[in-house]
Amino acid sequence: MLGLGLIGGSIMRAANAAGREVFGYNRSVEGAHAATADGFDASTDLTHTLTRAADGGALIVLAVPMPALAGMLAHISELAPRCPLTDVTSVKSAVLDEVAAAGLLERFVGGHPMTGTADSGWAAGYAGLFTRAPWVVSVDDHVDPRIWSMVMQLALDCGALVVPAKSDEHDAAAAAISHLPHLLAEALAVTAGEVPLAFALAAGSFRDGTRVAGTAPDLVRAMCEGNSAQLLPAVDQVIELLVRARESLASHNSLADLIDAGHAARTRYDSFPRSDIFTVVVGEENWREELAAAGRAGGVIRSALPSRDSPR
Amino acid sequence: MLGLGLIGGSIMRAANAAGREVFGYNRSVEGAHAATADGFDASTDLTHTLTRAADGGALIVLAVPMPALAGMLAHISELAPRCPLTDVTSVKSAVLDEVAAAGLLERFVGGHPMTGTADSGWAAGYAGLFTRAPWVVSVDDHVDPRIWSMVMQLALDCGALVVPAKSDEHDAAAAAISHLPHLLAEALAVTAGEVPLAFALAAGSFRDGTRVAGTAPDLVRAMCEGNSAQLLPAVDQVIELLVRARESLASHNSLADLIDAGHAARTRYDSFPRSDIFTVVVGEENWREELAAAGRAGGVIRSALPSRDSPR
Repeated sequence: MLGLGLIGGSIMRAANAAGREVFGYNRSVEGAHAATADGFDASTDLTHTLTRAADGGALIVLAVPMPALAGMLAHISELAPRCPLTDVTSVKSAVLDEVAAAGLLERFVGGHPMTGTADSGWAAGYAGLFTRAPWVVSVDDHVDPRIWSMVMQLALDCGALVVPAKSDEHDAAAAAISHLPHLLAEALAVTAGEVPLAFALAAGSFRDGTRVAGTAPDLVRAMCEGNSAQLLPAVDQVIELLVRARESLASHNSLADLIDAGHAARTRYDSFPRSDIFTVVVGEENWREELAAAGRAGGVIRSALPSRDSPR
Repeated sequence: MLGLGLIGGSIMRAANAAGREVFGYNRSVEGAHAATADGFDASTDLTHTLTRAADGGALIVLAVPMPALAGMLAHISELAPRCPLTDVTSVKSAVLDEVAAAGLLERFVGGHPMTGTADSGWAAGYAGLFTRAPWVVSVDDHVDPRIWSMVMQLALDCGALVVPAKSDEHDAAAAAISHLPHLLAEALAVTAGEVPLAFALAAGSFRDGTRVAGTAPDLVRAMCEGNSAQLLPAVDQVIELLVRARESLASHNSLADLIDAGHAARTRYDSFPRSDIFTVVVGEENWREELAAAGRAGGVIRSALPSRDSPR
């Protein structure tokens, strides 16, 4: 485990509770000491940790912030280039590029546990953080079935629901459901802030609609700016919908098109089917495409899928 | 009480519980019977109800839907033109126009209790609906201090917090804090609905950001289209903010301006000062402007203000 913050520290606890052997590295002495004091196997010696991983063929989990990623990948390609590798970062294409640049793509399967709290650091983590949370495991064209199964198993051991997805589709979905809502909340807060009396009367729908505008600006910027390729078309689409609605309201006082379409979309979301994926065999022909399609359709993996080489 | 739906029926119960004499009219036999069965004084005879109001000098409360307003005002101007008059409608300028067209402006003080539930009809109402809810009472230039005090007292008797406001400022605020959030929620739901995988991964911020897109389209249209004069500039402002953010993201991968401004506005909202208004005397020089300014600054009336003619 490289990085023992909220996510890395919680995976360490959850994997340990599931009976797995876990050891970790943390850059700050405080974080490593806190983990050690809680009875975990943690160190601030990166060379030692990576050598140990290489010797044991450990699955390496990158749980460092995006800016620290390139440096960490350089160390891995020097000291543990044959270890299977995953990550827990929220923008998958950018990570894929960094991993490819470090020459580690072949052993890499990206991941994104979709959970979190407002707090950070080792002390904020707990083993139950991932219970029934979606954990995206990427099924990009390059991924190795054996390593994919390892990452799936880690997520399941942590109590998560595995959602298989292509990295670019994950990022497009994240732009629409997470990054775009942040921008709309910011724009709504700014607009209302300029209207006298608005804050005096604001309640329910305004409070809900701007809740995420309370998130620290640097976190919101990192998420949104790190996913600009996918966020731009989503913003364009919202602008186009609003411009069309505005023209319709101005010219014949009707908002029917937008409001009917919005209600229909929200209704489809409320009844979106959730299902279990259990028929795909990892490593068989077209397994990546089948998993991506099943994930898109609302499927989740709740218990380990068989793989071509394993007994069924 | 003209109209015994959710709002009208709840005012009837609350005013009755406060010891006031209340009698009401409802168009449908079912609603009137339900109120009568619950022990209230309700009728389906409009002529009888308005004649009784005129004889007793009752404060008439318009609690009918907007499309029924003009017809109701015609009956009032015929049968009870000298009665003081208020309403509970969510768009104040449109009501003001209708009341003026019916020649009843002089006796009218608009109101808007800012509360509600997803349900409607007599059965959905209850006396506690207005407890600590803001109830806007308009302080437009024409309003008579004696009638203003009557409407304030009704709202206070129902347990509400009275917020004094000009009708156009109320409508501009409602556009920014209620109608615009609806349009953004619709646009977000439509945009996400077109992205494969989005609904499969959607959770927290998407669910919050699109919650109000679940409201029945005709209700949303009535609210938004009825306030188009104030909604249009709010939509224009949001479009401009999003277009500028989009250009900044595309040209130098930065969303700093929008995100910093949004966070600052939301922070100001979280710490918006609430205060009690108690120094204004209704009917003294500039009382309307003083009350409007106090409302804009976050002030609410929790107990009846003195009026120029009343003992202090």
